[in-house]
Amino acid sequence: MPAPPEFLAYVDAQSARFIQRLSDAVAIPSISGDGAFRPSVIKMAHWLDGELKALGVTTKLADLGTHVMDGQTLPLPPAILGRLGEDKNKKTVLIYGHFDVQPASKSDGWHTDPFVLVEEADGRLVGRGSTDDKGPILGWLNVLQWHHETKKPLPVNLVFCFEGMEENGSEGLDELIEREKDGWFKGVDCICISDNYWLNTRTPALTYGLRGLVYFKINVTGPARDLHSGTFGRTVHEPMTDLISLMSRLVDSNGTILIPGVDDMVHAADTEERAIYEKLDCSVQEIEASAGAPIALSDDKVSVLMGRMRQPSLSLHGIEGAFYGPGAKTVIPAKVAGKFSIRLVPPQTPDSVEPLVRKYVEAEFKKLGTKNKLDLELLHSGKPWVADWKHWNYTAAIAATEAIYKQTPDLTREGGSIPVTLSFAEALGVNVLLLPMGRGDDGAHSTNEKLDRSNFLEGTKLLGTYLYEVGAATA
Amino acid sequence: MPAPPEFLAYVDAQSARFIQRLSDAVAIPSISGDGAFRPSVIKMAHWLDGELKALGVTTKLADLGTHVMDGQTLPLPPAILGRLGEDKNKKTVLIYGHFDVQPASKSDGWHTDPFVLVEEADGRLVGRGSTDDKGPILGWLNVLQWHHETKKPLPVNLVFCFEGMEENGSEGLDELIEREKDGWFKGVDCICISDNYWLNTRTPALTYGLRGLVYFKINVTGPARDLHSGTFGRTVHEPMTDLISLMSRLVDSNGTILIPGVDDMVHAADTEERAIYEKLDCSVQEIEASAGAPIALSDDKVSVLMGRMRQPSLSLHGIEGAFYGPGAKTVIPAKVAGKFSIRLVPPQTPDSVEPLVRKYVEAEFKKLGTKNKLDLELLHSGKPWVADWKHWNYTAAIAATEAIYKQTPDLTREGGSIPVTLSFAEALGVNVLLLPMGRGDDGAHSTNEKLDRSNFLEGTKLLGTYLYEVGAATA
Repeated sequence: MPAPPEFLAYVDAQSARFIQRLSDAVAIPSISGDGAFRPSVIKMAHWLDGELKALGVTTKLADLGTHVMDGQTLPLPPAILGRLGEDKNKKTVLIYGHFDVQPASKSDGWHTDPFVLVEEADGRLVGRGSTDDKGPILGWLNVLQWHHETKKPLPVNLVFCFEGMEENGSEGLDELIEREKDGWFKGVDCICISDNYWLNTRTPALTYGLRGLVYFKINVTGPARDLHSGTFGRTVHEPMTDLISLMSRLVDSNGTILIPGVDDMVHAADTEERAIYEKLDCSVQEIEASAGAPIALSDDKVSVLMGRMRQPSLSLHGIEGAFYGPGAKTVIPAKVAGKFSIRLVPPQTPDSVEPLVRKYVEAEFKKLGTKNKLDLELLHSGKPWVADWKHWNYTAAIAATEAIYKQTPDLTREGGSIPVTLSFAEALGVNVLLLPMGRGDDGAHSTNEKLDRSNFLEGTKLLGTYLYEVGAATA
Repeated sequence: MPAPPEFLAYVDAQSARFIQRLSDAVAIPSISGDGAFRPSVIKMAHWLDGELKALGVTTKLADLGTHVMDGQTLPLPPAILGRLGEDKNKKTVLIYGHFDVQPASKSDGWHTDPFVLVEEADGRLVGRGSTDDKGPILGWLNVLQWHHETKKPLPVNLVFCFEGMEENGSEGLDELIEREKDGWFKGVDCICISDNYWLNTRTPALTYGLRGLVYFKINVTGPARDLHSGTFGRTVHEPMTDLISLMSRLVDSNGTILIPGVDDMVHAADTEERAIYEKLDCSVQEIEASAGAPIALSDDKVSVLMGRMRQPSLSLHGIEGAFYGPGAKTVIPAKVAGKFSIRLVPPQTPDSVEPLVRKYVEAEFKKLGTKNKLDLELLHSGKPWVADWKHWNYTAAIAATEAIYKQTPDLTREGGSIPVTLSFAEALGVNVLLLPMGRGDDGAHSTNEKLDRSNFLEGTKLLGTYLYEVGAATA
């Protein structure tokens, strides 16, 4: 069911007011990763809480306690829980967003003050948090505003969860979700998160998957202290030689993971899934442009996109303990640690992949015949996530996108992770939809972050329309 | 021909005076690597010049000009050229030493003030420069003193070259040697350098070889900037994967160099040479103790010592540009540079080895099938050196060692380099002998550097006796 035409017209008519509200939000430097800005994050929570209340939302500020950062105990900003509508005959949609932002200062290379929203002639709304994630949150407020002013009932019940620590590990959120899953979040039918981006700058997208991660540290130790290669070269087993040899056995230059069983865990794409990739509006040239060099693993778009989205990947990040400075130093490092990680896709989990890595690394180390010592550490891990994109939650979003953008959205999976997605999906057991508002070039964590005016306004229409489609869907 | 018994008795009788002079020398903190101490290095030159003149040596202070260090233009300390004796019927021995020292401060872990010579109850003379290289220089002065006081002519003519920049790259010395090879150094028959150490703490040694070096940097570049492994893992060719793969193909865990031709250039030891290693007074356990762990490449002493002394070695030092800190960072580094070096032995030279390395690295890189770019740089190089240990210069030193220590000296080759050795050997074309005074545990560049009292006194006797043996040798 399409959204009322009056709502769509209202969004265009109210654009100045909506952009002013985004400007007000951007003006609060709610940087969660810098302790000095913690009062601003808390101020931002109260500002948003006020806006929600003014639009008729019942709210509760959830105290998440304190945490220690850089040796300082700091209050965590409260999470905002909201609720609007209690109609048993309507579906209940949980909406997540975050009101904290990445650090930003003009000296990093911003052309304008990052905390003053600037509307450029080409329609870019430039400012920290414009697209990540204040714009999308305000998109929801815009939707509420029309319903509030016109006293039109919403087509669904809404539950909100807005946090202020997303850019700093979402501290306290998992515990809140666990605590509220049968409380504030009880009865939620589906979840919508607008906190990622289109694949490109022109085609709307829905995202139904995220890769997980296992991050390892291979420790190889030998001598009691660093040695001089003049005195000890070809005299002792050198930890670097062993480590480099091990690391070279993990992945080849074409990205194939050499640890037996890891690549094999993932089934090949069937015709239907393959068709999703063939339809994606993205070229190898665009991927290479974003990497800054013609170094894609393949000339075939489908193969490159599947590599990012539906295959595991293994990257070698670096070595701790070896010589890393400029110049020439003839050291035999005594203790070296190689860092690598594997991005996971279903059905892989950290629990299923870690033993394969351990078994292989230990077996390969034995083959070296070295007298040095090996210790493999798992530094951190996260599960991958894939949603059923044939679920009515997605069908609603596809219909809404086609209604607003007159385009079929790209169905994407992201190569990275958005941990909160998994937390909600696992705790509540309902379908999660990632419905991005911004474009692929928004520069979320970068300088001169922007949200295009058209994405903000059409995105607002999209979010509203999505709610109508969900309301009309046959669950 | 043995040294006069009166000389040997004199050394014992004058020990307090000799140790006092060493104490005076150690008290001048002639640290060449720290610009703030440059006046002390120059003061040390004048002190030594005064001592030489008082002992009848004709000297010339060679001005080596200035150099720039840490952005500051500093005067180089003068080298001291000395000459004693002009008898056409005697051989002329060139003696080299250096009067500058490594940095030292109590906060580094010295138990006593590094610039106050302390004689411990066990006979250790502790102080910076005691063994490297003020003790050996003063050993020569001790020899001169007896001849000066008794007015006995020396059995050989002596030419001295003492420099004050050895611990800082011997700046200006190569040019001086080149300039003076047909001047001050004309007519030199052999060279003796006392600036290295016994293999252990109990057996005197002569050293007839040093390894050379080629130090390489393998640059692999791909993306225009560091990438995120979530977005780009299994999407692009990663420079780290290529670099680690290349580095793993250089050397195996047993020290075998995998670059074709490099190990093969070195001929196997014949029976006579093998016997030298079998006789060396050193165990695998001692080598492992100095490395601090049981990680020797072999349980066979001869094999381990040959690895250090007469085989090339390849060490992987580290990687510039990759993640090297603690913790977990999911970066795909854009530009990485692997550092490795090969210690060379004759007949290898940097000129003969470098093309083999280049050809191999480039060919292996091609095999990777990557789209990243390779650039191999030679950062620096030095030739190896081996002297003819059957030369009368060595025969004289062996006889002198047997006379003083009642032991046949170990015939050693060092795994590292002493560049000045090669400079003299090449410029003057005569036999060079390395005749160490100190023990393997002196800690030359370390804290609590020491020279044992017995090594100082017996070493003085050894240097004097060596001159008599050279004087009597049939050239």
